[in-house]
Amino acid sequence: MPRRERALARRTSRDIRSESRLDVLHALLAAGEASRSDLARVTGLSTATVATVMGDLLSGGIVSEVRTESGGIGRPATTLRLNGDRGRVVGVDVAETYVRATVFDAALAELGAAEVATDEHRGGTDYIIDAVVRALETALERVGAAREDVLGVGVSLPGGMQRSASVSVVVPNEIWHHLDRLRERIGLPVVVDNPLKAIATAELWFGEGRRHSSMITVNLGTGVGAGIVLEGKVLRGAQNTAGEWGHSLLALGGRRCRCGRQGCVEAYVGVAGIQRTLAEIDPGHPLAAEPMQREFIEALPAALEAPTPDRAVAETIERTARYLGASIADLVAIINPEMITLTGWTAWALGDHLVPAVRRWVREESPGDSAADLAIQVSSVRKGSVTAGADTMPVAVGIATIALERFLSDVGLLTTKVPTAL
Amino acid sequence: MPRRERALARRTSRDIRSESRLDVLHALLAAGEASRSDLARVTGLSTATVATVMGDLLSGGIVSEVRTESGGIGRPATTLRLNGDRGRVVGVDVAETYVRATVFDAALAELGAAEVATDEHRGGTDYIIDAVVRALETALERVGAAREDVLGVGVSLPGGMQRSASVSVVVPNEIWHHLDRLRERIGLPVVVDNPLKAIATAELWFGEGRRHSSMITVNLGTGVGAGIVLEGKVLRGAQNTAGEWGHSLLALGGRRCRCGRQGCVEAYVGVAGIQRTLAEIDPGHPLAAEPMQREFIEALPAALEAPTPDRAVAETIERTARYLGASIADLVAIINPEMITLTGWTAWALGDHLVPAVRRWVREESPGDSAADLAIQVSSVRKGSVTAGADTMPVAVGIATIALERFLSDVGLLTTKVPTAL
Repeated sequence: MPRRERALARRTSRDIRSESRLDVLHALLAAGEASRSDLARVTGLSTATVATVMGDLLSGGIVSEVRTESGGIGRPATTLRLNGDRGRVVGVDVAETYVRATVFDAALAELGAAEVATDEHRGGTDYIIDAVVRALETALERVGAAREDVLGVGVSLPGGMQRSASVSVVVPNEIWHHLDRLRERIGLPVVVDNPLKAIATAELWFGEGRRHSSMITVNLGTGVGAGIVLEGKVLRGAQNTAGEWGHSLLALGGRRCRCGRQGCVEAYVGVAGIQRTLAEIDPGHPLAAEPMQREFIEALPAALEAPTPDRAVAETIERTARYLGASIADLVAIINPEMITLTGWTAWALGDHLVPAVRRWVREESPGDSAADLAIQVSSVRKGSVTAGADTMPVAVGIATIALERFLSDVGLLTTKVPTAL
Repeated sequence: MPRRERALARRTSRDIRSESRLDVLHALLAAGEASRSDLARVTGLSTATVATVMGDLLSGGIVSEVRTESGGIGRPATTLRLNGDRGRVVGVDVAETYVRATVFDAALAELGAAEVATDEHRGGTDYIIDAVVRALETALERVGAAREDVLGVGVSLPGGMQRSASVSVVVPNEIWHHLDRLRERIGLPVVVDNPLKAIATAELWFGEGRRHSSMITVNLGTGVGAGIVLEGKVLRGAQNTAGEWGHSLLALGGRRCRCGRQGCVEAYVGVAGIQRTLAEIDPGHPLAAEPMQREFIEALPAALEAPTPDRAVAETIERTARYLGASIADLVAIINPEMITLTGWTAWALGDHLVPAVRRWVREESPGDSAADLAIQVSSVRKGSVTAGADTMPVAVGIATIALERFLSDVGLLTTKVPTAL
């Protein structure tokens, strides 16, 4: 009897301890401050388990005790909270037109950020690595954090999904082959992942991810993609490329996508795709020629809300809702999730106008009754921020969370879900 | 702090014991007969764990010991095997044109089957329930099994994915609302599920499912769909409709699908879709008018392998490979599995002709390098059989396995993965 290759990781009691710790950390993060009995009630763990978990987390400095005067007689009550002072984690969002580093404390509260604009006519691996290092150093300096306080740096790098080398992209595919150089230049513990895994992780720690056995967060911006969370875990796939729904087919032989293929979802519901829909409806419309994607998207709600709503824009939104509904219905057909959230700047700018029609189309286009109980809403993971970068928060906080998970794994408190090669 | 709704089932040490038992059962099924130390080696479990698991399975009568004379001196060796005599399980495959019941022993070896043809011009809930009962009783009689020997009956019912009531289907949606009547008429422990869950379960117990952390088996017949296995578990989804990839979009506004929508994958790569492709290429082709789907599919390899290959058929296969490749690429984009197997009668009849081109197209159409390491092959789960029903084996053995899983769960040996409502 030959030894079978075991691709499946065996689940051990160590994993169960790890999951209990993760449950407690999530509950503390949601509550801010809680007693042991609160935590037992919320997590469904026994008080004995919570006590054991707390012992581990306290001795690792991950949580701290807060003594509060109880109102009555007897000993003072003790509550617990995440220990923000344990150190700093940084989330670096490498996007098409900027690199932004955001510094968080160890309780994942944002402390500050720094952004470096990148020029899409330059690009290249070293150019991007320089920008990452500059953004990181500026951000650390801005919040007064020393390098030795940094528990980990998460870097979110776009996926490199193009099919043809001729497609111009600022962040080149080849950067994925030079992660060692990136690590060396940063000189701190680094974890690299793609933005879809970051937004899924953000949804898991801060949003709907742990309240549902299956949920998908759909990211709508220049690029589009899906963060998929199943049974409390981010779906990564064989090459960590799960969720590249933006490059699944909406229309065989349809619009050319920037990835090189025809008919991808992104070519219809990415920002450039929406602009193209407007241009098809009214080629002379001033917004059809708007050169800046962000300005284009942010002008649409105003056009809809004007005393005389712009009919070409209204028709654009209708068609976009149809495209988006049909594309989300494919996710429903294949994965049949309990919940879908929308995130990214298109969702934030257009959510109120888009979501009701998207809900209708998803129901219409999904197989049978599979979308009957499906909740669809704009994601709640979008913290306000003092920096200009408020709307990239899901990627920044998600990739910083992955860095924190990696740190907790390195100190033996979690069994990591992040592929260690990244 | 409010009590959070816990949609996520907590994993307990009971689940771990269940997983160890499942590992041992799978290893025994693959090996036929094995010693405890063989099983420890193959499963990666400790010998102590294997001994404990074996104690449970022996006392439940699920496995039995086989004493063999060792060649040398000392005590005789003891090996173990699944105890087929523990009872009988039945898999009932309710398809569009027949209902077939297959009886297995408790080691999942096939004993015999019986088929009842159904008339697609009749249909209806009671008509189907009658056919199920008749097929089941005939099959049990044929193999000489008493009703009290039956540990469980699995019934695979098509999903009911149509969007419009006007679409004629033999097996009506409403049957899902009358499962109590089905149970009552059968009068034995019954579990109901859909064929995609059955083929995924078959792949998990008999095929590639447990050798990969992610795999998808694509079913190609009258209907098409995907059985998805992640981390050793069948993906079910919120309404148990995960895998309805046949009703995801290939071409917005494209061919009308029998589900009522336009452009579904099934309208291109289901048998009727393939026939339609041939009719588009050569409207006067004799096979374009073949009224029986099975005869149509089985005539294609002969046309390709003729001394002068049929050019219209060759072109049909090329286009079908393109459609199928693009549609499978969507599964790669979204789930990024390690392996894809093809099953169903189209795959069995046309596999040799179709698979090389499908592989090429999947690589071409998948995002970036996400399909670079992807294995694509015809599923190995297609046991030979003495009955005419050899090629429905994956559904039959899969649904019988689900019934066996339910039995093992009822006697406390497994924590079930099957929704108990079904």
